Amino acid sequence: MSNFLGPDFLLDTAPARRLYHDVAADLPIIDYHNHLPPQEIATDHRWDNPGELWLGHDHYKWRVMRWVGIDEHLITGEAPWRAKFDAFASAMPQMIGNPVYHWSHLELWRYFGLEGTVLNGDTAETCWNAAADALPAAGFSARGLLKRMKVELVGTTDDPLDSLEHHAAFSGQGDLRMVPSFRPDRAIKIEDAGFADYIQALAELTHPIQNFDDLVAALCVRLDHFVAHGCRASDHGIDRLDVGAELSATALDSAIKTRMAGGVIDPEIAAGFRAALLVALGRAYAARGLVMQLHMNVMRNTRTRLLQTNGRDAGGDSIRDAALAEPLNTLLDRMDRSDELPRTILYGLDPSCNPVLVTTAGNFQDGSIAGKVQAGTAWWFNDQLDGMEAQMTTLAQMGLISTFPGMLTDSRSFLSFPRHEYFRRLLCRLVGRWQVEGAVPADEVLLNGLVADICYHNAKRMFVE
Amino acid sequence: MSNFLGPDFLLDTAPARRLYHDVAADLPIIDYHNHLPPQEIATDHRWDNPGELWLGHDHYKWRVMRWVGIDEHLITGEAPWRAKFDAFASAMPQMIGNPVYHWSHLELWRYFGLEGTVLNGDTAETCWNAAADALPAAGFSARGLLKRMKVELVGTTDDPLDSLEHHAAFSGQGDLRMVPSFRPDRAIKIEDAGFADYIQALAELTHPIQNFDDLVAALCVRLDHFVAHGCRASDHGIDRLDVGAELSATALDSAIKTRMAGGVIDPEIAAGFRAALLVALGRAYAARGLVMQLHMNVMRNTRTRLLQTNGRDAGGDSIRDAALAEPLNTLLDRMDRSDELPRTILYGLDPSCNPVLVTTAGNFQDGSIAGKVQAGTAWWFNDQLDGMEAQMTTLAQMGLISTFPGMLTDSRSFLSFPRHEYFRRLLCRLVGRWQVEGAVPADEVLLNGLVADICYHNAKRMFVE
Amino acid sequence: MSNFLGPDFLLDTAPARRLYHDVAADLPIIDYHNHLPPQEIATDHRWDNPGELWLGHDHYKWRVMRWVGIDEHLITGEAPWRAKFDAFASAMPQMIGNPVYHWSHLELWRYFGLEGTVLNGDTAETCWNAAADALPAAGFSARGLLKRMKVELVGTTDDPLDSLEHHAAFSGQGDLRMVPSFRPDRAIKIEDAGFADYIQALAELTHPIQNFDDLVAALCVRLDHFVAHGCRASDHGIDRLDVGAELSATALDSAIKTRMAGGVIDPEIAAGFRAALLVALGRAYAARGLVMQLHMNVMRNTRTRLLQTNGRDAGGDSIRDAALAEPLNTLLDRMDRSDELPRTILYGLDPSCNPVLVTTAGNFQDGSIAGKVQAGTAWWFNDQLDGMEAQMTTLAQMGLISTFPGMLTDSRSFLSFPRHEYFRRLLCRLVGRWQVEGAVPADEVLLNGLVADICYHNAKRMFVE
Repeated sequence: MSNFLGPDFLLDTAPARRLYHDVAADLPIIDYHNHLPPQEIATDHRWDNPGELWLGHDHYKWRVMRWVGIDEHLITGEAPWRAKFDAFASAMPQMIGNPVYHWSHLELWRYFGLEGTVLNGDTAETCWNAAADALPAAGFSARGLLKRMKVELVGTTDDPLDSLEHHAAFSGQGDLRMVPSFRPDRAIKIEDAGFADYIQALAELTHPIQNFDDLVAALCVRLDHFVAHGCRASDHGIDRLDVGAELSATALDSAIKTRMAGGVIDPEIAAGFRAALLVALGRAYAARGLVMQLHMNVMRNTRTRLLQTNGRDAGGDSIRDAALAEPLNTLLDRMDRSDELPRTILYGLDPSCNPVLVTTAGNFQDGSIAGKVQAGTAWWFNDQLDGMEAQMTTLAQMGLISTFPGMLTDSRSFLSFPRHEYFRRLLCRLVGRWQVEGAVPADEVLLNGLVADICYHNAKRMFVE
Repeated sequence: MSNFLGPDFLLDTAPARRLYHDVAADLPIIDYHNHLPPQEIATDHRWDNPGELWLGHDHYKWRVMRWVGIDEHLITGEAPWRAKFDAFASAMPQMIGNPVYHWSHLELWRYFGLEGTVLNGDTAETCWNAAADALPAAGFSARGLLKRMKVELVGTTDDPLDSLEHHAAFSGQGDLRMVPSFRPDRAIKIEDAGFADYIQALAELTHPIQNFDDLVAALCVRLDHFVAHGCRASDHGIDRLDVGAELSATALDSAIKTRMAGGVIDPEIAAGFRAALLVALGRAYAARGLVMQLHMNVMRNTRTRLLQTNGRDAGGDSIRDAALAEPLNTLLDRMDRSDELPRTILYGLDPSCNPVLVTTAGNFQDGSIAGKVQAGTAWWFNDQLDGMEAQMTTLAQMGLISTFPGMLTDSRSFLSFPRHEYFRRLLCRLVGRWQVEGAVPADEVLLNGLVADICYHNAKRMFVE
Repeated sequence: MSNFLGPDFLLDTAPARRLYHDVAADLPIIDYHNHLPPQEIATDHRWDNPGELWLGHDHYKWRVMRWVGIDEHLITGEAPWRAKFDAFASAMPQMIGNPVYHWSHLELWRYFGLEGTVLNGDTAETCWNAAADALPAAGFSARGLLKRMKVELVGTTDDPLDSLEHHAAFSGQGDLRMVPSFRPDRAIKIEDAGFADYIQALAELTHPIQNFDDLVAALCVRLDHFVAHGCRASDHGIDRLDVGAELSATALDSAIKTRMAGGVIDPEIAAGFRAALLVALGRAYAARGLVMQLHMNVMRNTRTRLLQTNGRDAGGDSIRDAALAEPLNTLLDRMDRSDELPRTILYGLDPSCNPVLVTTAGNFQDGSIAGKVQAGTAWWFNDQLDGMEAQMTTLAQMGLISTFPGMLTDSRSFLSFPRHEYFRRLLCRLVGRWQVEGAVPADEVLLNGLVADICYHNAKRMFVE
């Protein structure tokens, strides 16, 4: 008899089982950072078929499908959803060891009642039919899926130009809230082709932008619009953190003018501009009590053929191994010097940076609030058993795990919420092992509190209360 | 009673024991990349004494002997083989924890029937005598040793100038095949002292080389010679991967002319040349269906005194920690843009690069074939229990382990094939633990297939079929 | 019943329990590198209250207190010691997972007889009183605390200008010896503001310093003074290892003159100067049979506000992720070329450098002495369970653990010696697991010797005999 993903999956000690089943399993979910489409939540979207729901936006799955040798036609191409689903199901046996293997079964089992059915070519039909039968039912709309997982908060990721109309339309119905996160990457990446158009559009929404101060002020207008819609956090995608010397106001203004006029600026000036704008925004976040999230060290779209055929976010990104310690400490210090560093969460894609992120977070704790600067949860390629365990262990031993706001899905898929279950099991395994090896007191109140804080309460304090 | 290297060594779960003993243990070996001397296989070499066989080419052993404090005279010097063997044996107790401690015993036990004898100063005589008695017997020649380990394929590493006469002379006798791998490092390292002479020698073997295209064409002539002798793979030793801007044909031609005339070129030009030639060769491999292997991030010969007394490959190399993500993605994309990226295996000596290698491999999967780009097995200093486990775990969780072509010895020693046993036990331990913790279905057919593919069939598909 | 930090804490196999209780537990301590104040040892200092002893110099504790959200007033500020102690105790439950949680209990239990009492807000009073009652008793002076832990040698860290009067005054009373380590960072950091004044002071103690050779000779005068006081080791804090091209004597002299005159020098010249002086000092260490310690890859004082209010060593330092392999190999080779590389211990703060440090150490073993170059014990943020295990595992598998000189506290606190217990338990766990999984022979003499060497004898051979 198989215990595959069974009730005690990952729970290898008695304290782990107690902690998971008695404490962690039933806590609600605060998913404070993800990429769900606000419109689909606001309109309570429904899906035509399981294939679309399953594979429609999920570049994690696309990526392993390509690795297995499936033709793009059956991944993101013109093939019917059923054929794509079958191709995926048939390849499942080859995906063993990858989190997609676990996630896919958790998705099937937790949402569609297929508990115990192992997905492969033989069972594809059964699984498709069960899911197809379920989809029209109550509880399988966008919000239905979220409520099934006890999601209390969804933190979407939104451009400063976004009207937030869907957030306004859905201003928290029942137990579910949806709040925007402010992600101004396009205003920061001054060297990108679309910069001038973007700034122009921003100006039209706010006021004329002639210089750096105008730009910061315009972004703050939008930031206040976000705050009015419940925003509690910003997010920054920083592929390569590169903090140059501090630029003068004149140099910053000149960089904007040059780019608005279609000119080219020096890479060092661009880096200095990005850092300066990040610092200015950081101060704005601090003034508004918002959390600043920094996602660092990504190689994006490195396979040109894939970018040309599929565009961005198509499963063609990987880990960058650039040094972070020096630029990151410099950046945070520029905000902290005047006590304008906001609460901050640092995420790095290269797991060998975990120690740097955690100890950098330690440098900037100033005693003003518990866990002011955080090293965030295992991100993207690290969102798997060893990656999460490594992140939590490093956080615990080089920093402090008790203030950790825990898991988020960072996902584009409405089916990805069992990843919180995955995380919680792993956390309980970790704490359970600590108890068994005598590393923590066998104090149920103490350990229950630790687990509940990390699974739910810390995130609630940081993003809801 | 000791279970040291016993039948269930490393097999800490029932599924692991089943997988190893029923599936993995008896599979043949495809050793697709090593440094065995072709002549010794072709002539079915015999050794005069155990010391020479044991210590003659094995810089892994030399290195730990130096660390223990043994004088060079007893390592690579003039001392008699017996004295060297005794020095090594006496130092064995201090080598605990290093893979040499395991390898040495596996070599003694698996080849010479000394099962259970722990090597040290007291047992050195017994071991020497047992091995010396065995050496004249049938089955202790070069090919005898390979056949004892069920080696089906040996992939040697050869210079493009090599006549491959030994490969021709030994064109697969019985169950054993020997094929060459194309390693054109000397044509690529344009800044090295011997470059001009090397290109001259290449020209003499092929045609006059006046420019970059001539050089590529000359190398392709030799590559076709290799293919005619069964070559299925190339190999590149890239101490530091440094991919500059793409150079014009004029700049490439000029670089060659300057170096042929004894001149010096700029480091950036040298890097651009190396990258351009690598790209040109990659396209040639793709056209011929060959596998390209890249071995990256080595510090070589850093102790000048050792280089002066012992030359290269003497145990004086170590790990380089240069960033790989950016140059590696750039390099692979230059081949992929025109769909001329060959099947590729990436090896990095710094284990903290594993996540970069695996996720970069993921970027370049294009669905045309399963596992087109691979992150290769734990290499050199990583070829030990934690190194192999880390590599396989990262490959599984950030990429896909089912298509992994698995182990190779990369060795200069005919005794090193028990390292495949070592690898297979570790793989079975990994999969066995997955089953016990509920991370994979308890499906024997599924897991047997996974293990057999990684131990044997994937490499056979890639390098033999 | 809790087994928290119980007699078998961390000892998860029978061999581990045997090794720890029979071999490791009662061995004396050679603490060959720490930051204890020599004066407090010489005068056999006593503390007024437990708070001062507990929190007075311990930036590990300050750091987690800030992370928990405690105001600086209660950490390093004007608050009474009792209030600080209470704040710390109340926050203990939130420190679970960090080594401070273990260390604090080991400090309470091993020194003050509070075995079994878990520190928190409720028990703070009991603990304070027990410690306050104990402090006036015999055995709670500085030397009493050291003797309680069977410390045989304390290696302090001292500036070349230090008179060593306290070392002279305390020339080894009873079983305890105190020896200085030579730490000439201020003479090496030529770009620092205080350089000219420092060289001036050095000149006043020795002879006029007009050029590089004068400087080296002056430092050697002081080094001989240190040796006369029992010095066996030097120590270098190298925040960023940056070895430029070798500078001419003229360039070195010119750099000194420029800085002595208040001028600014180029960063590359500064790097070249630092490397040249390090090489010159390394040769001096080699000539005197001293051990050279290099502590690398630190980001120091990155939060300006904290530096301004609290100065250095206040808990505001973190890990640097600069590449080490190339500069480190270059530096060591410059000493080794003329066979003037001293015995050396390499420490890196970024744990992903462990493989680089260990394999670099391997390059420079020349057989003259066992373990001539060492990759030192897990340092600072790595001085915790996983950090120590990772360091030892990498050392064992990529190098050689049998010659490892083992643990040191690197601490400013007289209470930190239970960290040796922590280390020894972990070492015994590691070796015990090796035995259980069949990776080492079940040979008690062999394994006892390994453990005893690493816990005590190797350090004794290196720093005492």
